[in-house]
Amino acid sequence: MEFSTGVKQKETTEISQLLTKECLGKTVKVNGAVHTIRDMGDVAFVILRKHEGLLQTVFENGITNFNLQDLKAADTVELAGEVKAEERAPHGIEIRVKEVRVLSSPAEPMPLAIDKWKMNTSLEAKLNMRSISLRNVRERAKFKLQEGLVRGFREFLYSQGFTEIRTPKIGAKGAEGGSNIFKLDYFHRPAVLAQSPQLYKQMMVGVFDRVFETGPVFRAEKHNTKRHLNEYTSLDFEFGYIDSFRDIMDMETGFLKYTMKLLKNEYANELKMLNVTLPNADKIPVVRFDEAKEMIAEKYDRKIKNPYDLEPEEEVLIGQYFKEEMDADFVFVTHYPSKKRPFYAMDDPEDTTFTLSFDLLFHGMEVTTGGQRVHEYGKLIEKIAARGMSEEGLEQYLDTFKYGMPPHGGLGIGLERLTMKLVGEDNVRETTMFPRDLNRLDP
Amino acid sequence: MEFSTGVKQKETTEISQLLTKECLGKTVKVNGAVHTIRDMGDVAFVILRKHEGLLQTVFENGITNFNLQDLKAADTVELAGEVKAEERAPHGIEIRVKEVRVLSSPAEPMPLAIDKWKMNTSLEAKLNMRSISLRNVRERAKFKLQEGLVRGFREFLYSQGFTEIRTPKIGAKGAEGGSNIFKLDYFHRPAVLAQSPQLYKQMMVGVFDRVFETGPVFRAEKHNTKRHLNEYTSLDFEFGYIDSFRDIMDMETGFLKYTMKLLKNEYANELKMLNVTLPNADKIPVVRFDEAKEMIAEKYDRKIKNPYDLEPEEEVLIGQYFKEEMDADFVFVTHYPSKKRPFYAMDDPEDTTFTLSFDLLFHGMEVTTGGQRVHEYGKLIEKIAARGMSEEGLEQYLDTFKYGMPPHGGLGIGLERLTMKLVGEDNVRETTMFPRDLNRLDP
Repeated sequence: MEFSTGVKQKETTEISQLLTKECLGKTVKVNGAVHTIRDMGDVAFVILRKHEGLLQTVFENGITNFNLQDLKAADTVELAGEVKAEERAPHGIEIRVKEVRVLSSPAEPMPLAIDKWKMNTSLEAKLNMRSISLRNVRERAKFKLQEGLVRGFREFLYSQGFTEIRTPKIGAKGAEGGSNIFKLDYFHRPAVLAQSPQLYKQMMVGVFDRVFETGPVFRAEKHNTKRHLNEYTSLDFEFGYIDSFRDIMDMETGFLKYTMKLLKNEYANELKMLNVTLPNADKIPVVRFDEAKEMIAEKYDRKIKNPYDLEPEEEVLIGQYFKEEMDADFVFVTHYPSKKRPFYAMDDPEDTTFTLSFDLLFHGMEVTTGGQRVHEYGKLIEKIAARGMSEEGLEQYLDTFKYGMPPHGGLGIGLERLTMKLVGEDNVRETTMFPRDLNRLDP
Repeated sequence: MEFSTGVKQKETTEISQLLTKECLGKTVKVNGAVHTIRDMGDVAFVILRKHEGLLQTVFENGITNFNLQDLKAADTVELAGEVKAEERAPHGIEIRVKEVRVLSSPAEPMPLAIDKWKMNTSLEAKLNMRSISLRNVRERAKFKLQEGLVRGFREFLYSQGFTEIRTPKIGAKGAEGGSNIFKLDYFHRPAVLAQSPQLYKQMMVGVFDRVFETGPVFRAEKHNTKRHLNEYTSLDFEFGYIDSFRDIMDMETGFLKYTMKLLKNEYANELKMLNVTLPNADKIPVVRFDEAKEMIAEKYDRKIKNPYDLEPEEEVLIGQYFKEEMDADFVFVTHYPSKKRPFYAMDDPEDTTFTLSFDLLFHGMEVTTGGQRVHEYGKLIEKIAARGMSEEGLEQYLDTFKYGMPPHGGLGIGLERLTMKLVGEDNVRETTMFPRDLNRLDP
């Protein structure tokens, strides 16, 4: 009888292992995809692409037991050779290759110049061949950073006593109503895709006090802009026993501080490759919605057209204002008007035309919406009635409040937008692995 | 100008903080939901429900500045009082309450006896009031363990150099074809919900070598059994440069070993509450499909009806066989027949009627399907043609192989089933937060 007992030590060596001093001068085995071949005659430099980065290998006449003509870009190989220090090579090492084993070969030559440092390829072309264009090391680095953002979110929230939850993406009715809902046929019953985990995460605050979810959300919005997607990843948290809605912002600041440190420590290669300067999240200014509008109206000599709405250009100017005035990368804008927020938002008891809510702007773009929620059953019923909404489909949500809920609040962060602003892209599709928009359903 | 600088120290104390020696005799503030009230006349025991567990507090005439008549189950409160050792109380401590502040009150009394140790409530009733029934501490403990399984999956794979990916849930065509696909209208174009991240995760192996995803999948299957859901969570990984399909099983064994240790160390309360004995994942037997069928046919005196299929009852018997013969909780069953596996499965070169694939059985139920995949473009095209399938909709997937891919494989684990077998439930809905089945779309 055979048994599986866990991961076995591989014969092949990874880049991080090669960088330990003991490897120099030793003969090792490495594998990877052939990224580029630079043939100089007697010697050729073959760069391997591996998950940890690029690795330089050297094929030499008389030393390497292989005919270079039999090697091509995108072959995957296993090589044996000696590790040498070489300061001009990535990571300061190279492998002098003795033996070569080709593991697989492509059927056709590369259609995109993925080996270029900066790909001179349109976004459209990159998205059309996504699984190829992401083989470029700078393109893929964006998604390593995106991984870091999600890791930071989870690790920080675990440390704060949050429980991870999983809420359904198919439901009988849209959480927040509205027209931007995808509809589907569920065994001959009408169903919808979740536009947010909002109602479910609130329901789970009564169970675990503090909850989070990182999952897809679906919005059938018809605008095709650089910052909208029809499917994106929402980083959501929600927690109870808050003293004020300020607690929610402080929790987000805590997440951002933790995560910028995580990126600095564990994603240094990717930050360097993309030339990213990490934003400062240590001290984030908090400004009221109405005051922010006045501040930029005054400084930039701009008329306030609509006192109840914040246009994208105003968000940009608020970002600019706080960057100029106090070198801030992030700004919390608070107290959004009640009529612009959903029924579950808690109104400010001091002036109910405003809510105890906020957006977080990152370099002038909204990346988070959050706030305190109504937690009293009677008040919820009142707000629903006052808006002329129906309670239909909300029964389970409302029952949660009928049977008691603590004061609570939370937020949702758009992961792709956060990544986009972090790496300094201007189109959210650049930081979405497989974007879905009005025109794109494929790949 | 105000600033947010991160999470502030709260005045209230959590259970884990109370358990440090320094707290005994001190006056602290705690908050929570009133779980039960046991009124003994001069003294009353009020149990608070908090995310870390239950906390006993004592209301005494003359000491507690509050009329017990004004308190009811499901109130949320903030209490101030002295910490006392009390070995009969949960965690060995209680709070002698001096001050009481009610934060919120329910509108109606509890409809379910959530304060009972074992709720005497039907599954149907529990699911109909999910956000209430999960307030029972044993019910919610199942989902803490589920969190632990996902955490273990991610933490282990990060340690093995995997990158977390996010693949789209709306697509133009089903990944693996078949009839079990939910259809939706995507801006007047036909679209489907992803039944698996299979093709996308393979595409990303060419980018990151090793990838994983933990996300929802959607199956429009019409069987309403105890082990099927129409939306569930799939723990998927896929990695390249494997030496054989055995590497994939060893990676799963590594995950299981790591995670059982994580549960033991960090989820001990929940394991105890649910009386869970952790399964042994240190040494998992590996047996061929055809041999397993023969072994149980012989031992349990059973005829082999169909040599190319494994019925659920046979899975149960295989589980029983290995439990009886070698006290094994898990079994890898390998070499499933080619005709039962999808087009991307790699056939065994020694006998192409079988594949280099496997299922993992946990106490006699399939919780994982995995295997090596075809990585050569030409072979994929051949297999697709031999099955009479069309290449339509697979262009991007096939292009990935056209431009080179390493030998690779992976697997998908059904999270809710894994949780169900871990905690010893017999219906997967018991370990699904908000299940979706033929009849249930709500809550």
